Amino acid sequence: MPAISNKGQIMPQSPIRKLVPYAEAAKARGVEIHHLNIGQPDIKTPQVALEAVKNNAIDVLAYSHSAGFASYREKLAAYYNKNGIAVTSEDIIVTTGGSEALLFAMGSVTDPGDQIIIPEPFYANYNGFATASGVEVVPVISDLDSGFALPPIADFEKLITSKTKAIVICNPGNPTGYLYSEEEIKQLAALVKKHDLFLIADEVYREFAYDGLKHHSVMTQRDIDAHTIMIDSVSKRYSMCGARIGCIVSRNKELISTAMKFAQARLSPPTFAQVASEAALETPASYFTDVIDEYVSRRNTLVEGLETIPGVKVAKPKGAFYCIAELPVENADAFAQWLLEDFQLDGKTIMVAPAAGFYSSEGVGLNQVRIAYVLEENLLKEAVTILREALQQYNA
Amino acid sequence: MPAISNKGQIMPQSPIRKLVPYAEAAKARGVEIHHLNIGQPDIKTPQVALEAVKNNAIDVLAYSHSAGFASYREKLAAYYNKNGIAVTSEDIIVTTGGSEALLFAMGSVTDPGDQIIIPEPFYANYNGFATASGVEVVPVISDLDSGFALPPIADFEKLITSKTKAIVICNPGNPTGYLYSEEEIKQLAALVKKHDLFLIADEVYREFAYDGLKHHSVMTQRDIDAHTIMIDSVSKRYSMCGARIGCIVSRNKELISTAMKFAQARLSPPTFAQVASEAALETPASYFTDVIDEYVSRRNTLVEGLETIPGVKVAKPKGAFYCIAELPVENADAFAQWLLEDFQLDGKTIMVAPAAGFYSSEGVGLNQVRIAYVLEENLLKEAVTILREALQQYNA
Repeated sequence: MPAISNKGQIMPQSPIRKLVPYAEAAKARGVEIHHLNIGQPDIKTPQVALEAVKNNAIDVLAYSHSAGFASYREKLAAYYNKNGIAVTSEDIIVTTGGSEALLFAMGSVTDPGDQIIIPEPFYANYNGFATASGVEVVPVISDLDSGFALPPIADFEKLITSKTKAIVICNPGNPTGYLYSEEEIKQLAALVKKHDLFLIADEVYREFAYDGLKHHSVMTQRDIDAHTIMIDSVSKRYSMCGARIGCIVSRNKELISTAMKFAQARLSPPTFAQVASEAALETPASYFTDVIDEYVSRRNTLVEGLETIPGVKVAKPKGAFYCIAELPVENADAFAQWLLEDFQLDGKTIMVAPAAGFYSSEGVGLNQVRIAYVLEENLLKEAVTILREALQQYNA
Repeated sequence: MPAISNKGQIMPQSPIRKLVPYAEAAKARGVEIHHLNIGQPDIKTPQVALEAVKNNAIDVLAYSHSAGFASYREKLAAYYNKNGIAVTSEDIIVTTGGSEALLFAMGSVTDPGDQIIIPEPFYANYNGFATASGVEVVPVISDLDSGFALPPIADFEKLITSKTKAIVICNPGNPTGYLYSEEEIKQLAALVKKHDLFLIADEVYREFAYDGLKHHSVMTQRDIDAHTIMIDSVSKRYSMCGARIGCIVSRNKELISTAMKFAQARLSPPTFAQVASEAALETPASYFTDVIDEYVSRRNTLVEGLETIPGVKVAKPKGAFYCIAELPVENADAFAQWLLEDFQLDGKTIMVAPAAGFYSSEGVGLNQVRIAYVLEENLLKEAVTILREALQQYNA
């Protein structure tokens, strides 16, 4: 039998993959599961986006331009300009989800054996894209006590080698919910300028900034235009995860023309999804106000609930819709499995994502879980009750 | 300014990329262009697929399973079984186009520095996917005089090293239109078995076999189940290039579970496009009969036309909708540019793809072009007339 590649063997699995069979078995036993483990919002997709697809007049479902519809890129540029990011449609390539944008970015700035530095905990699939690209992730630890703020710049500098090509951040953060301050973004800007690195910022949760805080894009740091690469996506903004439309944005023309070569090889992003995404830009402002209000309520309910559970520590998120909670258990992975395998409260249990999968360092975050607050408040309240009871029983 | 990766610098461009500005300039001058350069069919997408999207009842456009809708994979398996390929839904991962299926296959079987052997001329984007994967394409030349038949197995064996991980074929071939015989497939099967290699077969044109010839899938060679990886796509079959739905199929469970890790990292294939693709499986048989009849007529018109032009040599395609034609010019690239820049016949010209971009060997195929017969017959007739006049004038 021919051998699987080394890359394929070390390719990491999703942090919840191991739990899926236990969740399926629990469902088979009739147990209801509250899914706090994934970032799939229950929020309705804007009607204007769904209607555009229903009313499409396509009769030959053709390739689009490899960079995406010109009309969509124009409107996207207008959207960014409205949000204080001065770009033109030439600075944008539409991709198949933020995922592909990250792959194009990594392919354009790294070669096999190169390194990228990422504050951890980080979105687990960065590991997958790095492995697929033959690139090593070098983590710099951020901690729960600071709310997962930017680690000291000195910590980054200790890790920079001749193989370091980029720093990757997620802002607001999945899984931390942390929102970088303008000062932190400026520190990162000075760092990449000093060491001549790329700064890849995953800003897919940009709209989800709470408590009156402002999101500061790396694209607003105009003295590092050659360094900045923004990753974006319609998935969370419009609750359109299944569209698979994202984009890579940079004012570095050489970077965009390189990413374009990767884009041409795969021909084009999906057409129906572009129709939906272009129309989604017409979503009324009230949609976002409602959605943000909803997430803030959910966050408050969740965090306040978690804080009442003895031994649970949580960093109150300022954005996105995740939080990392430290639990009074030694191994959150085993606990998450136990929740599905051996526990129920009135026929219900919860599924959480063990946080170790969001760290690249071995043995860090073992007692933490990521909780996504993508469920209605009454379900979140129930989830907190379930967690409280479960911890009591688990530790008895 | 931070440096672009080496990979990004050597990433090949599409063979027609250089011509695009000349085509745009020609259009700006009011010249009408017959596009023989791309494989974008003008055939209508089946109504059943378009209707399914129009009538979708989605209100939250959610991620699908990373392997694609279970219902779609079940129906796909049934489709393959009906076509003599015994597989189950477990052997299939739905991908974002055949492109992503190729990337997953390369990632699963090769590491940076490895080699894959491909008969050339081959689909130019194989170069792109190989470069993105850090893998070297080792070409084995097939020639126009044999109609681009499989090169002697000894030619492959001369190229096999410890770094060789797979042989990639496209059957029926883009850009050659060649359809491998059962005997040729058996020779390849024996070869990969003997040398313990993977056999990756791009079979996206499987329905497009002409003159009563049968398509022989690598999947029918049951003694190499561990070696075979089939790449497929809805793009050409249902004229749904813009859907971006393909799949990777293998009975090698380790291969599929490895490819699944790549699939999980990018979350899911596009949802609307899966709705369309699942419905497309209900396309009536008459659609294909009509489409095949149409392509056969077009091929005959094109090939018979080309054969009347002095100095033009063409390999009559047995499948797909491309042919490679040798022209009485030294450099087809320069000629293709001249067609757009300096020539017109009654306000019209043609755009063709210089074939050198489909060869990996330097200096091969310089006097060849790829012609896609994806236009109506009257336009193909006109295209032949334009080519005849152009060659006369170019060589005068």
